[in-house]
Amino acid sequence: MSTTTSLRSLNIDNINPRVKEAEYAVRGELAVISEEYRARLLNGDTNLPFDQVISANIGNPQQLDQKPITFFRQVLSLLEYPPLLEKEDVLLNQLGYKPDVIARAKWLLKTVGSVGAYSASAGAPGIKQSIATFIEGRDGFPADPKDIYLSAGASSGVNTLLHIICASPQTGVLVPIPQYPLYTASLSVLDAKCVPYYLDESKNWGTDLEAIKSAYKQAVAEDIDVRAIVIINPGNPTGASLSEEDVEAVIKFAAQEKLVVIADEVYQTNVFKGKFHSFKGALRSLQKTEPEKYANVELASLHSVSKGMVGECGHRGGYFELAGFDPLVQEQIYKFVSITLCAPVIGQCLVELMVNPPKPGEPSYELYRQEWDNIFNGLQERAHAMWEAFKDMEGVSCGKPQGSMYLFPTITVPPKAVEAAHKEGRSADEFYAHRMLKATGVCVVPGAGFGQKEDTLHIRTTFLAPGTEWIGRIKKFHNEFFEEFR
Amino acid sequence: MSTTTSLRSLNIDNINPRVKEAEYAVRGELAVISEEYRARLLNGDTNLPFDQVISANIGNPQQLDQKPITFFRQVLSLLEYPPLLEKEDVLLNQLGYKPDVIARAKWLLKTVGSVGAYSASAGAPGIKQSIATFIEGRDGFPADPKDIYLSAGASSGVNTLLHIICASPQTGVLVPIPQYPLYTASLSVLDAKCVPYYLDESKNWGTDLEAIKSAYKQAVAEDIDVRAIVIINPGNPTGASLSEEDVEAVIKFAAQEKLVVIADEVYQTNVFKGKFHSFKGALRSLQKTEPEKYANVELASLHSVSKGMVGECGHRGGYFELAGFDPLVQEQIYKFVSITLCAPVIGQCLVELMVNPPKPGEPSYELYRQEWDNIFNGLQERAHAMWEAFKDMEGVSCGKPQGSMYLFPTITVPPKAVEAAHKEGRSADEFYAHRMLKATGVCVVPGAGFGQKEDTLHIRTTFLAPGTEWIGRIKKFHNEFFEEFR
Ligand SMILES: Cc1ncc(COP(=O)(O)O)c(C=O)c1O
Ligand SMILES: Cc1ncc(COP(=O)(O)O)c(C=O)c1O
Repeated sequence: MSTTTSLRSLNIDNINPRVKEAEYAVRGELAVISEEYRARLLNGDTNLPFDQVISANIGNPQQLDQKPITFFRQVLSLLEYPPLLEKEDVLLNQLGYKPDVIARAKWLLKTVGSVGAYSASAGAPGIKQSIATFIEGRDGFPADPKDIYLSAGASSGVNTLLHIICASPQTGVLVPIPQYPLYTASLSVLDAKCVPYYLDESKNWGTDLEAIKSAYKQAVAEDIDVRAIVIINPGNPTGASLSEEDVEAVIKFAAQEKLVVIADEVYQTNVFKGKFHSFKGALRSLQKTEPEKYANVELASLHSVSKGMVGECGHRGGYFELAGFDPLVQEQIYKFVSITLCAPVIGQCLVELMVNPPKPGEPSYELYRQEWDNIFNGLQERAHAMWEAFKDMEGVSCGKPQGSMYLFPTITVPPKAVEAAHKEGRSADEFYAHRMLKATGVCVVPGAGFGQKEDTLHIRTTFLAPGTEWIGRIKKFHNEFFEEFR
Repeated sequence: MSTTTSLRSLNIDNINPRVKEAEYAVRGELAVISEEYRARLLNGDTNLPFDQVISANIGNPQQLDQKPITFFRQVLSLLEYPPLLEKEDVLLNQLGYKPDVIARAKWLLKTVGSVGAYSASAGAPGIKQSIATFIEGRDGFPADPKDIYLSAGASSGVNTLLHIICASPQTGVLVPIPQYPLYTASLSVLDAKCVPYYLDESKNWGTDLEAIKSAYKQAVAEDIDVRAIVIINPGNPTGASLSEEDVEAVIKFAAQEKLVVIADEVYQTNVFKGKFHSFKGALRSLQKTEPEKYANVELASLHSVSKGMVGECGHRGGYFELAGFDPLVQEQIYKFVSITLCAPVIGQCLVELMVNPPKPGEPSYELYRQEWDNIFNGLQERAHAMWEAFKDMEGVSCGKPQGSMYLFPTITVPPKAVEAAHKEGRSADEFYAHRMLKATGVCVVPGAGFGQKEDTLHIRTTFLAPGTEWIGRIKKFHNEFFEEFR
C-alpha cells in the first residue's frame, strides 16, 4: 500500500484511487491554460494573438455579460446588513428600493433569524414552504416542505443523492452520454458503476428509450445492481429539451424496473422551443390516472439558482425534492446533510427569491419582468447567431438551439488533424479545442469531456459571452485549421 | 443485494451502509426534539415546563445572542448590491458607512467580478493572497497563495482532505477522543478506519503523546495504514487550548511516523487562557532549526468564518492551507474541489474580511475593536458563570474554561439513573440529556456523541446563550434528577 521510499505520507500512487480516476473536464487543462492567458493579458503581455479570453467552457453567466436581477440583490443587501431596514425613507426615496423589497427582506430575516446562523440541516422551514408553493404552482399538484432539501448548488444535492444510492462497487446508475461530468466524476469517487446510455443526436439529442433499455439490460447481465437513472432536462451539454412523451417514457421505464429517477432540471427556465415538462408534474399525472402502477416511483428532482435568468452561480443555492422515498431513507439523507451542517443561508434566501419573484401588480414586478425578458432574449439571440455561424463552417453540424446554455456541434476534422492529435497524445476534439484556445482565446470543452459515441467528435460552447465578435474569431480559426490539415 | 420484496428501489437495508453507520449527534435525536418543542412554543403551546428552547448543542453564535460585526456586513451588503456604490454620499452621510467599507467593497468586486459568478475552483486569487498575508502576519513565516484552498466552511475542507487521504478500508486516521463528530462521520462514509487516541482529562484535555503513540502502534499492529493525525485546537468538545510544547510534540511524532497533520484551528481566536499556537508556525520554526528532519512534514490547517468573534456560520466560509504536500497530490485536490465548482463567493469574501479586518487608524477600526472585545468578553464571562455553576453541582466536575465555545463536564450519575437509562436503551449521558431537555428546554449533547472513555459520562454545552437564567434552570433540573435517582 504505502510506498516506503517516498519521503511523504501521500503521493500520487497511494492517494484515493477513486479520486484519481474521476474526470472533470469543464475545469480541466484547457481551463487552466485559459486562466494563464488571462493573467498574461492582465500583466500587459502583447504576444498573444487575441486581447481577451472568453470562457465559453462553463455556464457562468455573471462572469460574462449577465447582470443580476435587481430585486434579488436588493433583498440580499438588506439581509446582509439589517440595520438598513431602520432607514426605510433613505431606502425608498434615495436608493430606489421598493416596498416589496423591504417587506421580503423582513420576512426572510424572520424566517432565518440571521443569515450568519446555521439553518436547520435541510434548510430554513419557511424557505422550504415557499419552494413547495412554487412546485405546486408549476405542476398543479401539491408538494410537501418535508420532502425538500436545500443544497449548496445542485452539485451538492447530486452528491448527497449519489452517496445514499451507491451501496457497493456493483451499484449502477444510468447516466446519459453525453452528460454533465459531475455525474461520472461523483460515481468514480463513490466507486460505483456508471451505466451509460446514449442520447440520440439524430433526434436533436432526445432520450432514446431503446438505448436506455439495452444499456440497462446489458448492465443487469453483468450483475450490476442498477438503481437509478439520471436525466438532465434541458440537457447539458446537448441543449435538448424533452417532450412530455419522453419524460413519461422514462418514468414508465423507471416504474417497471424500480429505478430512482434523478431529474436534473437546473435549466428548467432555459427553454427556447416548446415548454419545460417537469418530471414531478409528469409523475403526479401518471399517478392520477394509474395509481397502482406509479405509486412507488422514487423521484429526486434538482433545481439551482445558478442557471436560468437568475445566473447566481457564486451563491451556491439549490434544492432537491423527493417523491416516493422511504421515510427511513429520508432520515438517512437528513443525517448525511447534517454532517456538513447546512447549505449557505444567503444561497437559501436566493432560492426563495427565485421561486417567489415579484408578481404582477407588485412594485418591483415591472423591472423584474423587463430584466428577465432581456436576459432571455439575449440568450436566445446569441444562441441563434452562434448556430448560424456553425451552419456555415466546413465539417460542422449542429441542431437548432432548444434550451440550456450550450450548443454541442459535431465536428468532422480532416484525417491529418486526427494524426497530428494522436502524435500529441490527444483525441482530435481535444486537439481542436487546444488549437482554438491558442488562436482565439476562446475556451470550449471537447466532447470527450462529456462522453460521445466512438468516432464522433464534438465541442461544447456556451452562448453567454456578449457580442458576436468572438464568434467571428472562431470561424476564422476554423477555416485556418481546415486549411492547415486538409 | 436488492431486497426483492420491497416496492421501492431504495430501503433502509440496501442504501449505502457507510452512510448508515455514520453518526452525527450534534444534530441528532435531541436536536430534532428540541426543534419540535420550539415549534410547539411558537404555536402557543403552554403545556411545556419552559417558555424558551436553548440550543446549547451547537456552536451557532448568531442563532443566539451574537451580533454580526458591522464592518463585515456593511461590505457584504455592497457586494450584494453594487449599484449602492454609485451613491457614496448617501452611504457616508446617511447610512453611516465609512470610506474603508466602500474601498474594501470595490476591491473585492474587482477581485471576484460578481459574487454571483463561480470563482476559480480553489477560490478567488486575490482572496487567497489576503489569506497568505494573514498567515504570514500570524506566524512570522511566509505563506503561498497556491497552497490555499477556499471551502464551504471548514466542514467541506475536512471532507476534501479525507477524500484524498482515504485510499482503502485499511487507511487509518488518528482522531482525538472526544472529537467533533465530523471526523468519525466522514471516515465512516469513506469506509476508512478511525484510529482513536484519548485526550487526557486529568491534564485539562491536553494531548497525551503516550496515548497517541500507543494508539498508533496498536493500529499498525492490526495492519492499518495510518496516514494522518487530526488535532482540534482549541478543542471541540473539550475546550482545551494546546501549549506550544504539545503542538511541537505532535509535529515531531508526525515527522517520525510520516503522518499528515490535519490541524483543525477553527477556534484559533477563542482562547481565554494563554495564547494560540498555530501548527503552521510551529512547523516552520522546527524546520528552521532542523531542516533535514522536518522538511517533508505534510500539514493541512483549517480555518473558518463560523467561529471566533466572527460567528458567521450560515455563510459557509473557510479555507485550508497545505504545507509540504506533493504537487501531484495538490493537482488531485484541485480537481476534486472543481467537481463542485467553488466555495460560496460571499463566504469567500467574508474569509477575506476576517483575515484582513480594519487596522488601527482606519475609519472602521474603533467600532470593529469594540464589537470584537464585547463578544470576546461576553463569551469569557458566560464561560466562567457556567463553570461556577457546574462546580456547585453534585457529581459534576469540570475544568476551567480555556478556549473554543464549550464546556465538557464529567457527570457521575447515581446507579439507579444508569439502570433507568438502560431500560430505555440509552446510555446514561443520553438519558440525562433527554431528561434535561424535557425539563428545561436546554439542548446539550451527551458525551457519547463525541466519544469518551468507557465508564465516564459527559455532556457538552456551549456558553453562547445570553443571560444566566437558563444556567439556573440546569442547576434546578440537576438537583431534581439526583433526588429522583439517588
Ligand atoms: C446539468 C447540471 N447540473 C448541475 C450543475 C451544477 O450547478 P450548481 O451546483 O451551480 O447548481 C450544472 C452546472 O453547470 C449543470 O450543468
Ligand atoms: C472543530 C470543528 N471543526 C469544524 C467545524 C465546522 O465548521 P464550519 O463548517 O461551519 O466551518 C466545527 C463546527 O462546529 C468544529 O467545531
